[in-house]
Amino acid sequence: MGGLLRPDEKVEELTRKIKIIQSKRGYRFSLDAVLLAHFVTLRPGEKVIDLGTGSGVIPLLLKSRQPDLTVVGLELQAELADMARRSVELNNLQETVFIQQGDLREAIAVFGTNRFDVVVSNPPYWRKGEGRINPDFSKALARHELECTLTDVIRVGSGILKPQGRFALIHRPERIQELIQLLNEYHLGLSRLRFVQPRLTEPPKFMLIEAVKGKFAKLEIMPVLVIYDEFERYSPELQQIFQR
Amino acid sequence: MGGLLRPDEKVEELTRKIKIIQSKRGYRFSLDAVLLAHFVTLRPGEKVIDLGTGSGVIPLLLKSRQPDLTVVGLELQAELADMARRSVELNNLQETVFIQQGDLREAIAVFGTNRFDVVVSNPPYWRKGEGRINPDFSKALARHELECTLTDVIRVGSGILKPQGRFALIHRPERIQELIQLLNEYHLGLSRLRFVQPRLTEPPKFMLIEAVKGKFAKLEIMPVLVIYDEFERYSPELQQIFQR
Repeated sequence: MGGLLRPDEKVEELTRKIKIIQSKRGYRFSLDAVLLAHFVTLRPGEKVIDLGTGSGVIPLLLKSRQPDLTVVGLELQAELADMARRSVELNNLQETVFIQQGDLREAIAVFGTNRFDVVVSNPPYWRKGEGRINPDFSKALARHELECTLTDVIRVGSGILKPQGRFALIHRPERIQELIQLLNEYHLGLSRLRFVQPRLTEPPKFMLIEAVKGKFAKLEIMPVLVIYDEFERYSPELQQIFQR
Repeated sequence: MGGLLRPDEKVEELTRKIKIIQSKRGYRFSLDAVLLAHFVTLRPGEKVIDLGTGSGVIPLLLKSRQPDLTVVGLELQAELADMARRSVELNNLQETVFIQQGDLREAIAVFGTNRFDVVVSNPPYWRKGEGRINPDFSKALARHELECTLTDVIRVGSGILKPQGRFALIHRPERIQELIQLLNEYHLGLSRLRFVQPRLTEPPKFMLIEAVKGKFAKLEIMPVLVIYDEFERYSPELQQIFQR
C-alpha cells in the first residue's frame, strides 16, 4: 500500500480490477453511485466531471467502463478528497483522474463555462428540514442539501458543460417535477429516464436521468431497473454490474 | 337486445357483469382505457366526467368499481356517443351514467367551473404531424390531436374540477415533460404516477397520472405495472382487473 492507507480506513474491492479506500466508520459510498456510474453514456476521449465525488467511487467506475476518459472528481470535504486521491493512486489512475477539493457552487469560476463533455452527480437527496440530519457532519453533507441544493447542481452542471454535452444525475423519484422544471430553466433537454425499484412490487427508490445541453432531446424512458429478484438475489442486470 | 344493436355492431363482455357495444370495423376501445378506469381514485357519491368517452368503456368500468357514482361521458362524435348511450342502457345504468355529445373544448361553458369531483381522460396520444393519420376519420380523431390537444384537455379538466378535485389521465410516457409543465400551468399538483410496461424488459408504453386541483400534492410514484409475464400470460394484476 506504500502508506496510502490510514488506521481508520480499509481497502474494498469495487470490481474485480478496482479497489477503493473506505472509512471504517464515516461516510461511505452506496449503491446509487454505482447505478449512476453504469447509467451515464460515455464515449472515448471525453472529459468528465463528478460534482461531489465523495470517496471517488464514480470516477473509478467510469474509468473501468471506458478507460479512455479524463475525469475530474470535485469534493467539498478535504478529508474525503484526500481519501479519494489516494484511491486513485492505489489504482494507478493519477494521470487521467484528478481529485480536486472545492465547493461545486464555485465550479464555473474555477473551470470556466463550456468545458466538459459529461457532468455526473449523485447529490444530497434531502432538503433542509426533511428528515433527521445525521450527527456525523460528513454524512450529513452527503445526504442533506446543507452546502448545495439541486438548483446549484443543475445551474453549475449546465454552465460547465459544452453545448450538446450530457448531464447525468441520480435522485429521489419524488423530486421529478422540480427536476424537470430545473432542467428546462437551465436549458437541459431530458433525453433518458430510468426508475430503479428495490423489488418488482415496490415503488421506485431512485431515478436516473440524462439530459443534453441546449437541445430539445427525444426522450427515451427505459424499462424499470429492479435490484432484487423474487429470491432476494441481485437481478441479472445488477449481477452484471458487479462482475465487471 | 330490444333494438339496441345495429347490424355493424356486436356486444362484448367487458367484465363478468358488464357488456359493451362495439363497432365491428370502426373505432374500438383498447387496454389503455381499462388501465385508466382501474387507476383513478374513486370515492362513494362522487360526480365524475370522462372527456372523450368514445364507446363509453370508462364510465361503465368506473361504475363496476364504485356503483355509487354519477358519471358523465362527453364525446365529440355523434355516432360514438349514440353507441355509448345504448351500452349504458344495455347495462341499465341510464339513471346515473349520462352520455353527452359535444366538444370538450366547450365543456367549461356547458358545465360551468368547479363542477366535478373527478375528471378522467384517455386523450389522443399523437400530435398533428407525428406518425400516420388513420384514414378512418373516427379512429383518427381518437388517436391524433386533430380536434383537441393535451393543453385543451388539461385546461378544461382543471376548469370544470372542484377545488381539491382529482384529474386522472393516461398518455405516452415520452410526453412527461410537457405534461408536468401543463399541470403546473393549470394549478394541478401531480399526486400519483405509474408507468406501464408491456413486459419487464421493455420500455413503458403508457403512463398513468393523477393530479389534485389547486394543491401542492405529495407525489406517490407507484411500482411499474407489467402487462405480460415471462410466459406471455397477463400478469396477476391484469388478471385481477379482467376478473372483476
